[in-house]
Amino acid sequence: MQNTRVVLASRPKGWVSEDNFRIEQAPLASPGEGEVLVKNLWLSLDPYMRGRMSDAKSYVKGVELGEVMVGQTVGEVLESKNPGFKPGDKVLTQLGWQLFGAAKDVVKLPDLNVPLSYYLGILGMPGMTAYFGLREIGQPKAGETLVVSAASGAVGSVVGQLAKLAGCRVVGVAGGAEKCGYVVRELGFDACVDYKAGRLYEDLKAACPRGVDVDFENVGGEILDTLLRLMNVGSRIVVCGLISEYNAAEPYGYRNMRSVLVNRVRVQGMIVFDWKERYGEGLKALGAELAQGRLKYRESVVEGIENAPKGLVALLKGGNFGKQLVRLG
Amino acid sequence: MQNTRVVLASRPKGWVSEDNFRIEQAPLASPGEGEVLVKNLWLSLDPYMRGRMSDAKSYVKGVELGEVMVGQTVGEVLESKNPGFKPGDKVLTQLGWQLFGAAKDVVKLPDLNVPLSYYLGILGMPGMTAYFGLREIGQPKAGETLVVSAASGAVGSVVGQLAKLAGCRVVGVAGGAEKCGYVVRELGFDACVDYKAGRLYEDLKAACPRGVDVDFENVGGEILDTLLRLMNVGSRIVVCGLISEYNAAEPYGYRNMRSVLVNRVRVQGMIVFDWKERYGEGLKALGAELAQGRLKYRESVVEGIENAPKGLVALLKGGNFGKQLVRLG
Repeated sequence: MQNTRVVLASRPKGWVSEDNFRIEQAPLASPGEGEVLVKNLWLSLDPYMRGRMSDAKSYVKGVELGEVMVGQTVGEVLESKNPGFKPGDKVLTQLGWQLFGAAKDVVKLPDLNVPLSYYLGILGMPGMTAYFGLREIGQPKAGETLVVSAASGAVGSVVGQLAKLAGCRVVGVAGGAEKCGYVVRELGFDACVDYKAGRLYEDLKAACPRGVDVDFENVGGEILDTLLRLMNVGSRIVVCGLISEYNAAEPYGYRNMRSVLVNRVRVQGMIVFDWKERYGEGLKALGAELAQGRLKYRESVVEGIENAPKGLVALLKGGNFGKQLVRLG
Repeated sequence: MQNTRVVLASRPKGWVSEDNFRIEQAPLASPGEGEVLVKNLWLSLDPYMRGRMSDAKSYVKGVELGEVMVGQTVGEVLESKNPGFKPGDKVLTQLGWQLFGAAKDVVKLPDLNVPLSYYLGILGMPGMTAYFGLREIGQPKAGETLVVSAASGAVGSVVGQLAKLAGCRVVGVAGGAEKCGYVVRELGFDACVDYKAGRLYEDLKAACPRGVDVDFENVGGEILDTLLRLMNVGSRIVVCGLISEYNAAEPYGYRNMRSVLVNRVRVQGMIVFDWKERYGEGLKALGAELAQGRLKYRESVVEGIENAPKGLVALLKGGNFGKQLVRLG
């Protein structure tokens, strides 16, 4: 048996392209003492991967040229040299873009009677991001207005539904009529603004007649700058992602900083790892909402490891619809 | 006896000029029931006044054309129709740019054995701004690095000295060698960067070898945007003022927002009125430091009401040195 893996071939300038990756065959790893050999079943594709392809300072070191692309996977243990695991166990790994791998730091998945892929989405990093970012920084109160960008995405869709459960007026921002329709009709948001329609300020203003109390920001750029004009006194902006900037050659120039002063806005950056000791709490809370059918969730699946580069390119351009996954198994 | 007052004659476009004001003679006000007639002794000039000259949305409504310019004063009661006050009492007022006025909402000053003008500065709004903004939002810890812009000013000088007392490395940003020298030699800051020297990033980086944990921002624009590049993980930015933007025809475009995400920075706007119920606490704390000689304080005095416009113009251009006052008495 051979391993197939995707390595970083070159660093993107601006938009990522499939040429930045190379698909390789390699011998199967042999698990060392304390390790397990895992067959990956699902690979998660996420916006943060754009940052790891660059060598600019970010949360953590970027991927080196020739190295396997980083990423979270769900897989099955084939062989174990760790007494905590046995063949057949389902695990969460950081093995990245490859079909097989050996590792020590894998996490055995609980059995919550949900599809395995959910542990990469609504019960994984995106779900935890939504749960803790909203709860700890956004702090929505009943009756307030919350706006979330990338509203149909893995994080945004959970943020908006949790805010609805908290009693907020919830307005999404998404690209195109199809995504906006889904956000309102399927996810139950009060409104959704299509940022591609070219009337961003007017449409947001109309959708938020009492201003904005919480902006859960996944996109940044013009969307964030426009929302700054609509923030209420004492409002909060959760800076969870700035996906519009990741591929831009030049950073966006935000012109409405004065609103932060005038309206005493609290703008705070976040990364989900800051709450890693509390994932159990998030898993329990989101698992309970899912079990009661109070959270809807959508996936966008690319078939096969060789299509992972195409999947990431589409994700970064907003071409996906729901949590982006690659089916490997 | 006649009153002399300064009214808003026209709204500035860009920089304020003396032509935006008109000096008028008017009959003396007569105090109504519950009011006192006050002879103003000192008028405070502050950057926020630029905002009140505009009709753009800000904290509060702007000054109407033909109205007396707003401002805080310290004065002496000449005549009282309020049982709480008697002639000779020293009071803090919002009577604005005029020699006399009648009002109900004046505050009797405690006698802390300090010059009366201090109640407009280190023991007034600027002092409270420094005290509460630093304590409640900046939250400096011993060993951290704090940067404060407009470091020789009424707010900045107090912020930096309080942060030194809290055990921080304190770096000021000020315009010109004279102010920088004062900040280091007289106020005891560890370093001061001259923003006019044209090496802002390099000089700040050298002055903050362990990065920046708190930025107490009074200026904004290029200074804030440059500091964003130097903020540490988990750092705080107190957005207290954006004086560089007040006179700009176009708002500044901030290009380093990504640092807020990557470093999980908390950026928060403030206005001192949010803590008005707690001024007593601030007065006590700052009064105690002053009494022990642990806070230095400098004033810049313009003589006579007719020179108030010139004083404000100079303040907004950074031409003052210390808390800007107009002596009226």
